[in-house]
Amino acid sequence: MDFARSVTHPVTHSVIHRACGGSVRGVTAATDLVGIDEIRAAAGRIARYAVRTPLLAPPLGDRRAGLYLKPEVLQPMGAFKIRGAVNAVAALDPEVRARGVVAHSSGNHAQAVAFAARAFGIAAHIVIPDNAPTRKVEATRAYGATVDLVPVAERVTRAEQVARETGMTMIPPFDDRDVIAGQGTIGLEIAEDAANLDVPVAAVLVPVSGGGLISGIAAALAALAPEVAVIGVEPELAGDAAESFRAGRRIAWRAEDTGRTCADGLRVPCVGELPWAHIRSYVRDIITVTEDEILAATRALALDARIVAEPSGAASVAAHLFHGAELPAGARVAVVSGGNVDPALLGRLLGGS
Amino acid sequence: MDFARSVTHPVTHSVIHRACGGSVRGVTAATDLVGIDEIRAAAGRIARYAVRTPLLAPPLGDRRAGLYLKPEVLQPMGAFKIRGAVNAVAALDPEVRARGVVAHSSGNHAQAVAFAARAFGIAAHIVIPDNAPTRKVEATRAYGATVDLVPVAERVTRAEQVARETGMTMIPPFDDRDVIAGQGTIGLEIAEDAANLDVPVAAVLVPVSGGGLISGIAAALAALAPEVAVIGVEPELAGDAAESFRAGRRIAWRAEDTGRTCADGLRVPCVGELPWAHIRSYVRDIITVTEDEILAATRALALDARIVAEPSGAASVAAHLFHGAELPAGARVAVVSGGNVDPALLGRLLGGS
Repeated sequence: MDFARSVTHPVTHSVIHRACGGSVRGVTAATDLVGIDEIRAAAGRIARYAVRTPLLAPPLGDRRAGLYLKPEVLQPMGAFKIRGAVNAVAALDPEVRARGVVAHSSGNHAQAVAFAARAFGIAAHIVIPDNAPTRKVEATRAYGATVDLVPVAERVTRAEQVARETGMTMIPPFDDRDVIAGQGTIGLEIAEDAANLDVPVAAVLVPVSGGGLISGIAAALAALAPEVAVIGVEPELAGDAAESFRAGRRIAWRAEDTGRTCADGLRVPCVGELPWAHIRSYVRDIITVTEDEILAATRALALDARIVAEPSGAASVAAHLFHGAELPAGARVAVVSGGNVDPALLGRLLGGS
Repeated sequence: MDFARSVTHPVTHSVIHRACGGSVRGVTAATDLVGIDEIRAAAGRIARYAVRTPLLAPPLGDRRAGLYLKPEVLQPMGAFKIRGAVNAVAALDPEVRARGVVAHSSGNHAQAVAFAARAFGIAAHIVIPDNAPTRKVEATRAYGATVDLVPVAERVTRAEQVARETGMTMIPPFDDRDVIAGQGTIGLEIAEDAANLDVPVAAVLVPVSGGGLISGIAAALAALAPEVAVIGVEPELAGDAAESFRAGRRIAWRAEDTGRTCADGLRVPCVGELPWAHIRSYVRDIITVTEDEILAATRALALDARIVAEPSGAASVAAHLFHGAELPAGARVAVVSGGNVDPALLGRLLGGS
């Protein structure tokens, strides 16, 4: 393994970094990247199931001027993940799809795949770590999925085993071109709506975890609005993609390190291989935000924009509010990627003023 | 004055009722009601300023099946009021408009008129009772309006005096056909979006205060989807419109009685005259909900639909969740009219589970 420490992007705590695992298939040619036609096809497939979210321009006060919001919290299961999951399930050959789908996730991907399976009337087997919050387990079960609680270390092998034994298709959370194309429909919509604004959009701010979301959005905007800078946002405590971006190669953090951030949707310790190819080709920069900034943005979204974001979803807004100097000047769109917040956390944030 | 007690709709506390004040101009002929052409014109006028809100179908679990949400909390100042205020300001003769506008309000109407004035580059003089929350005063000032804090009893006379002395135009909160036409654009959008649903919409649930919102929506749906039942929802503690509906005549409650509900946007003690004409012609029923039901709906909206509603805005959802037997069977749309909630109240609701 290749151990390295960040030097270009200071981190104030001790973190061991290593190169990402997985077979390096060398996805680098532009022809391997998800194209606008795939994203347009995805838009057609998901139209019946996902909300075509509006672009909101809340007048959030001086510091927030020029911030437009893309509120993916309004999706049926509360996060953008529904777009990629529905597209991936819809794109399956009908005979293959009929055997069902399997996924492993402790978060929004679990609910998204369960939702997509229900939408297509097929079985879903979702492997969830047995330390996941009851609330998320219940939400996944509510869509009719079979929930398989396993020790966290076994989740991948269990899901692969189920896929092998049942013929169900694994729906990956981010390292998949149909999933990326589905998330890319957000970029399609931003490009359409930005054309109707009074001001040009300078940047789109996107939370980064495994990288599927930013890959799809960046691919869409590269085709439709290449003048717009796509900027990734990560918690400082899970800044593997920011470090990778500066190093020019994928670097993984340890899960126990990324696990420290309150933004539990952004703890994936390394971006995926296909996402990395998109990030290298299309993304202008990846910046990091602190835990306090993420929580302040979560609170501001609830009170000033009237939308409930989970910390992971508010990271993009934190970048605008607290790191404007690191971003292109002008109007910005923040993708608020999800809203499945711990109720007690949000309650504390609101009570604390 | 005409004192009366409700008999058809039991209320568990002592309330003195009286007939509404104001000149009775006898607005009863259908030709006096706001028509679909006026509402379409309003839609054109407000398009640049108001969000064309989506119709959300959150899978909120069994009890919530069949509930679609119209989230007006996503409007720039957090409530539907922006539609009526912008339309009323836009409809003014340009020379008259240039002299500015005046309004009196302790709630969302204040911010809506201030927003509309800023949008058109004119002055706004907003009279606010001096016991209003600082948060609402600051929000109104943030749009550049002149805020005039006066004792609550003087707010109407002060606003009228300002209008008389300055030539500014008074923008009424609900008893005005341009305001009603603006709110009616919500009905227009519901009719458009309902046509794309898999199921027919049986009812649209609308919070009732002065009656402008339900009037506009009912007028639009009477023209575009007359098979849809428009149902008003009021707090039991401010049930003047429900009582009026049953009595067949407008009945006012005392402000000190309607003031008991936590739904501070629904405390107007009597629906307006022009709204009453619309309610009599177009509204199927008006039902009441309890304080506990309103607060439970507010919590459910935050956690299951990821939108922040103020209690007034959640009343419609409370009707669906807790009074289904009083409503038409089938899919329902709840208009979530506003989201300017007291942060501490929402914090308590979220912490209390």
